[in-house]
Amino acid sequence: MTTPYKRLDKDQAAVLLVDHQAGLLSLVRDFDPDKFKNNVLALGALAKYFRLPTILTTSFENGPNGPIVPELKEMFPDAPFIPRPGQINAWDNEEFVAAIRATGKKQLIIAGVVTEVCVAFPALSAIEAGFEVFVVTDASGTFNDVTRHSAWDRMSSAGVQLMSWFAVACELHRDWRNDVEGLGALFSAHVPDYRNLITSFSTLTQTR
Amino acid sequence: MTTPYKRLDKDQAAVLLVDHQAGLLSLVRDFDPDKFKNNVLALGALAKYFRLPTILTTSFENGPNGPIVPELKEMFPDAPFIPRPGQINAWDNEEFVAAIRATGKKQLIIAGVVTEVCVAFPALSAIEAGFEVFVVTDASGTFNDVTRHSAWDRMSSAGVQLMSWFAVACELHRDWRNDVEGLGALFSAHVPDYRNLITSFSTLTQTR
Amino acid sequence: MTTPYKRLDKDQAAVLLVDHQAGLLSLVRDFDPDKFKNNVLALGALAKYFRLPTILTTSFENGPNGPIVPELKEMFPDAPFIPRPGQINAWDNEEFVAAIRATGKKQLIIAGVVTEVCVAFPALSAIEAGFEVFVVTDASGTFNDVTRHSAWDRMSSAGVQLMSWFAVACELHRDWRNDVEGLGALFSAHVPDYRNLITSFSTLTQTR
Amino acid sequence: MTTPYKRLDKDQAAVLLVDHQAGLLSLVRDFDPDKFKNNVLALGALAKYFRLPTILTTSFENGPNGPIVPELKEMFPDAPFIPRPGQINAWDNEEFVAAIRATGKKQLIIAGVVTEVCVAFPALSAIEAGFEVFVVTDASGTFNDVTRHSAWDRMSSAGVQLMSWFAVACELHRDWRNDVEGLGALFSAHVPDYRNLITSFSTLTQTR
Amino acid sequence: MTTPYKRLDKDQAAVLLVDHQAGLLSLVRDFDPDKFKNNVLALGALAKYFRLPTILTTSFENGPNGPIVPELKEMFPDAPFIPRPGQINAWDNEEFVAAIRATGKKQLIIAGVVTEVCVAFPALSAIEAGFEVFVVTDASGTFNDVTRHSAWDRMSSAGVQLMSWFAVACELHRDWRNDVEGLGALFSAHVPDYRNLITSFSTLTQTR
Amino acid sequence: MTTPYKRLDKDQAAVLLVDHQAGLLSLVRDFDPDKFKNNVLALGALAKYFRLPTILTTSFENGPNGPIVPELKEMFPDAPFIPRPGQINAWDNEEFVAAIRATGKKQLIIAGVVTEVCVAFPALSAIEAGFEVFVVTDASGTFNDVTRHSAWDRMSSAGVQLMSWFAVACELHRDWRNDVEGLGALFSAHVPDYRNLITSFSTLTQTR
Amino acid sequence: MTTPYKRLDKDQAAVLLVDHQAGLLSLVRDFDPDKFKNNVLALGALAKYFRLPTILTTSFENGPNGPIVPELKEMFPDAPFIPRPGQINAWDNEEFVAAIRATGKKQLIIAGVVTEVCVAFPALSAIEAGFEVFVVTDASGTFNDVTRHSAWDRMSSAGVQLMSWFAVACELHRDWRNDVEGLGALFSAHVPDYRNLITSFSTLTQTR
Amino acid sequence: MTTPYKRLDKDQAAVLLVDHQAGLLSLVRDFDPDKFKNNVLALGALAKYFRLPTILTTSFENGPNGPIVPELKEMFPDAPFIPRPGQINAWDNEEFVAAIRATGKKQLIIAGVVTEVCVAFPALSAIEAGFEVFVVTDASGTFNDVTRHSAWDRMSSAGVQLMSWFAVACELHRDWRNDVEGLGALFSAHVPDYRNLITSFSTLTQTR
Repeated sequence: MTTPYKRLDKDQAAVLLVDHQAGLLSLVRDFDPDKFKNNVLALGALAKYFRLPTILTTSFENGPNGPIVPELKEMFPDAPFIPRPGQINAWDNEEFVAAIRATGKKQLIIAGVVTEVCVAFPALSAIEAGFEVFVVTDASGTFNDVTRHSAWDRMSSAGVQLMSWFAVACELHRDWRNDVEGLGALFSAHVPDYRNLITSFSTLTQTR
Repeated sequence: MTTPYKRLDKDQAAVLLVDHQAGLLSLVRDFDPDKFKNNVLALGALAKYFRLPTILTTSFENGPNGPIVPELKEMFPDAPFIPRPGQINAWDNEEFVAAIRATGKKQLIIAGVVTEVCVAFPALSAIEAGFEVFVVTDASGTFNDVTRHSAWDRMSSAGVQLMSWFAVACELHRDWRNDVEGLGALFSAHVPDYRNLITSFSTLTQTR
Repeated sequence: MTTPYKRLDKDQAAVLLVDHQAGLLSLVRDFDPDKFKNNVLALGALAKYFRLPTILTTSFENGPNGPIVPELKEMFPDAPFIPRPGQINAWDNEEFVAAIRATGKKQLIIAGVVTEVCVAFPALSAIEAGFEVFVVTDASGTFNDVTRHSAWDRMSSAGVQLMSWFAVACELHRDWRNDVEGLGALFSAHVPDYRNLITSFSTLTQTR
Repeated sequence: MTTPYKRLDKDQAAVLLVDHQAGLLSLVRDFDPDKFKNNVLALGALAKYFRLPTILTTSFENGPNGPIVPELKEMFPDAPFIPRPGQINAWDNEEFVAAIRATGKKQLIIAGVVTEVCVAFPALSAIEAGFEVFVVTDASGTFNDVTRHSAWDRMSSAGVQLMSWFAVACELHRDWRNDVEGLGALFSAHVPDYRNLITSFSTLTQTR
Repeated sequence: MTTPYKRLDKDQAAVLLVDHQAGLLSLVRDFDPDKFKNNVLALGALAKYFRLPTILTTSFENGPNGPIVPELKEMFPDAPFIPRPGQINAWDNEEFVAAIRATGKKQLIIAGVVTEVCVAFPALSAIEAGFEVFVVTDASGTFNDVTRHSAWDRMSSAGVQLMSWFAVACELHRDWRNDVEGLGALFSAHVPDYRNLITSFSTLTQTR
Repeated sequence: MTTPYKRLDKDQAAVLLVDHQAGLLSLVRDFDPDKFKNNVLALGALAKYFRLPTILTTSFENGPNGPIVPELKEMFPDAPFIPRPGQINAWDNEEFVAAIRATGKKQLIIAGVVTEVCVAFPALSAIEAGFEVFVVTDASGTFNDVTRHSAWDRMSSAGVQLMSWFAVACELHRDWRNDVEGLGALFSAHVPDYRNLITSFSTLTQTR
Repeated sequence: MTTPYKRLDKDQAAVLLVDHQAGLLSLVRDFDPDKFKNNVLALGALAKYFRLPTILTTSFENGPNGPIVPELKEMFPDAPFIPRPGQINAWDNEEFVAAIRATGKKQLIIAGVVTEVCVAFPALSAIEAGFEVFVVTDASGTFNDVTRHSAWDRMSSAGVQLMSWFAVACELHRDWRNDVEGLGALFSAHVPDYRNLITSFSTLTQTR
Repeated sequence: MTTPYKRLDKDQAAVLLVDHQAGLLSLVRDFDPDKFKNNVLALGALAKYFRLPTILTTSFENGPNGPIVPELKEMFPDAPFIPRPGQINAWDNEEFVAAIRATGKKQLIIAGVVTEVCVAFPALSAIEAGFEVFVVTDASGTFNDVTRHSAWDRMSSAGVQLMSWFAVACELHRDWRNDVEGLGALFSAHVPDYRNLITSFSTLTQTR
């Protein structure tokens, strides 16, 4: 009677980054800008770290929505990049869906701007198409808490799993022993409190 | 085991605006008044833009609840307008349900004041009557967060989809190419941040 | 796949007021005390107005939990009053359940202090026993938002419907024409904004 | 169509305390530190009071994550203590699962740091393995409200029951008469408002 | 270099209630309506209890601002009541100032709606005219926190003392022994937590 | 020892609108965009209504900061408009100060973006130059509450008076009788709750 | 033109704990109870640690206000304890002032319940009597933020210095070298994050 | 009667960074960690950009407080770095004050952890010693809002000016024309919304 546990698997998962564009980011007000920037870059970094196939898409990037955030473009120079000519739901763009199917993955990790449109629409369509869908809530932004929670409720009711980027990283990694340095570096770069723990620990263990 | 994706379709949808009355609006305290006014007018504007059949209803408008907000009445001079003589759940008013059935639509987009009564009651009745129901959370107001979340929970559990007016507009429009100017004008009028993006963009592209 | 609409019916409903005791009320911190007092008295007043069978119960009222709030006791002098000798879940008290069954009602409207114990426990037991259960969220208090939302989630998952006292009153009343004066008096006494609307309206219509 | 009421039973329940480590606690920002410390110790105290089998586990305790909170270690000197060599999801550690199975209990009460990883992962795995799972929301901490609510939604959708430590204690105890002094002492130590009620009550009844 | 302590003295103080009108109250959004209603009535009750000369005034009460709150009018049937024909700053109304001067008091306790206009303007004028001014912050309401804090800053900078109604009552009373019953009754009626303390205390001391 | 009451006088006051530019507005996050837009336009409208000399200035409007908000430019087609070539503190621009001195006014009403720079710097300079300075707090925006309150504290300590646009309008108008229609129209356009009062009032008085 | 720096000196300071009574504590709602309990005990602990003369007083402790918090009484068994027969402002009690003068100290550190009465009144009186006054804001509680900030503003305007208990401890201690162990123990007992730092540090330095 | 405008001058100012240590940062809870990290690094970056003499100091860095944040140490490899052996108020350390005096500057820009101790103590001492003091509020952190506002009030009353790092940068720079690129780079690195404006602007102006 409940949604069964769908566990992220780094061999099964692809990442979709939808409409993180310089103009659209000014619409995001459910996160502090410093924090949101960090969350999006952290998601990009983990996608890269786990070598997950990653697909970038934008909406109308020659208009007021503006270009994709440069850091993301630089992080994934060879990833499929689909500037959509007009489709609001990225899933309505055949090239986008083709790129997803080309990865051969069944688990989709989605984040974008704004949550109730650029994230929720393809997430719902992906569920309908039989994928397992994981939305990264803290790398997806929108106007305010009311629009956020409406979007979360709609997605959750449809079977989407809501996760933070940190949970995604941990679930993909499974075991610290797979690469202590790598995961530690990811956390150190994007979780200031974790970095502080490492700084204190390293200083103490090196000096003694 | 989950609610399937019901996608809004402009050929299938009608809009119900329930009890946005001058007196009742003083009860709405889960939104700032400036924002709420904008959200309600934005919903009206999108209903008009997409030429969705729209039905207005009020409760006891000759008493303390006061008249319908004049802007809505002016926006829809020819829409069915059903001042209910007493029924609290608009669905209990036969004329109201008849007007809905007369549209021939199966998707109902509902907003009103207050959320847990004037919105939730007809939304739940409409679900029971076999309609697909979409409640516009940010154009529906109530006393406070506790009453709001109780109403959302009750509606969501019954299969109502919770959406913002912005998501409704985007899901109905499907593709910017259907009418870039029109959707842009809607957003420019009701999303200040979007208007600013357009202002900056237009100024730059015109002057160069 | 979703919870069907269970509509409150004044001929089918009974009210359970659980552990609104002078001592326990000092534990309630998810509501401002002025507001919570008003909400509880409003629920009492509507139970009385709709002549719903009402059952009062307390836990250990001779100890630190303190006596029942005097206003409630005075409001329902002849109602079954079951001071429980020790059972935390009121449903474990046979006398309490017998009093409920004696009403012959199948819909239970429950409120109490604290939400996750005195409300959630009997609400969950009542669902299990086949009743339709409606919890009045704004007349039920607890320590903080975390404990509140945990309780709401547990109850909602089990099929409890979450409502505000205002929604309960409106759903029971069905139609203003059943008694305009009575419902107006209830709202005037417990919704300050509504009272103001009535004051302004009455003054204007009387003086002109 | 809904999750049935699973009632905690002190003869059926075991407690899992996951990664309450001195370093990791600096990541917890969805609770005030004074409150969170109290909640964790209250959960420990109730586990001890009800003599529930309790299992402690840590992640990488010789690194930056730091050692387990000393109070917990002292409270359960003889409990199984499983410092995991690397598994992020404690359920991936065979020794941990073996310790759980050795208790013979089918109800698992889980708390830990951080909620969306150290709590949610084993909670979801335990559901999958057929256990009844109760997560103690106020003894589990994480980075912020977004990560918390994402974790709650994922767990709730999978059938996990969300409870506060106070609700856990009350549901296990069933009836004050089982031991008034014991439960009173637990509350007095961890609920300041309750302690004040007892102080006032005792003073009055002793001096008169 | 600092503002000296000006202590309220019941023989020196008068109360000014400015524009607590049924219509204007819908503008007040920096307080929950239940709480604000209680605070205003508590201030009225203390003025009456300490027999402080009290002056009522309204602005345009035959227009949209609406009539004075009936409870205040009933509480002070014989008090000077000055419906201002148009002056926004009540101090610009000669009749109002004359009524104040007629009391012979030098300490003015002011509350009203909205804080930055109906309260701040006469408060600043009264300071200029040589009075000691005490603004009751929790019986004065306005649109939001920004307007509130702007008003507080302007008044505080000019030497106005900001107090709650509870502090006003306590400073005027000086010593419980002056009348334990009276002050207790005032608190019992307007401080729910205090009422609960009295309920528990009375019950215990009466039954033993 | 305190700041004396400086009362706004429509014959003594000028308005300075500093850097309300399409790009810079994306930095404003201490107000909801709908509300902030309304507040700025309300300030513009009142400046126009009271025929106060108004001066517009921008910073680097050909760069990323973007052009001035079009509504303001249209509202004041003939006002001095000083696009500053580089000075951050507008007071460092001689043309700007000359325009102010040309008005012959001694009271300056200032608003702008962002509060701690574009507002605070000229406000502090104006105080130093001997003007009476009134900052419109709700038409001035910045990054967050910390930067806002730092700016307010610095300005208040220097003798700046903090006011809302509504208070400015009321203090300038002095008496409703000077023009009931005009002030009513201003409030109706920019205070939704006031508009509702007027709607209800007009409907009732016209129909009876 | 500003308040000069008055630095706390452990040879010049006395502590006044006013009305921390079991009943009155139920009125304190501007702090979470767990946090407030900790702050009050921390202040007690630092007073003891620095051997500051400490004076306890209560108001009506045989009535509903209830007895003094037992921990404080036990912590200071030999301190002057003045149960006031009725004076609301403790400074009006001659015995209380005499006890203060008997300490020979000129710096008074004050905390109590509720802030705007039991703290603010004696604080203002002490300033008037020529003492240097330091109010411990986080060990003083009241009804809500409005009453708190009104009290803070009134005290600050009169020259009271507002400090946290942590700042008081640090200013009194001056130099860690005066007693590293002692101050560390105080912080470890009352600042959970500090305790965690010490736990991690000690574990690392002991095991290596 | 008010604090005169003290304007920051890059030739007169030095920066003091007090106790930004890896351990102490876990105490900072009045800022989100991502934001606080950004603010501190932004302050460091602006100190470097304006070539302000900068002095670093730490408290007990070999103990639990942990080492200075590595980024700051790397940013200022040649700056005076004074690890204090025990003085809590850095001003009590002669070497620290000597380093300040050696800069020959009279304006001190101070930030640190925690606000009410490591920032407020030296800030108050510096005022007493005749310096002009500017505290960077958003690069100074503490336990919570109560401790923050107590510290701000104490410092503001003593004549300290409260500023954000952004205001400091703007006041020092005076005129964009002094170096458009440099200031733009600083903002681009530390104000995400500003970076987005620049991204959109550059893309548009380069492609056209």
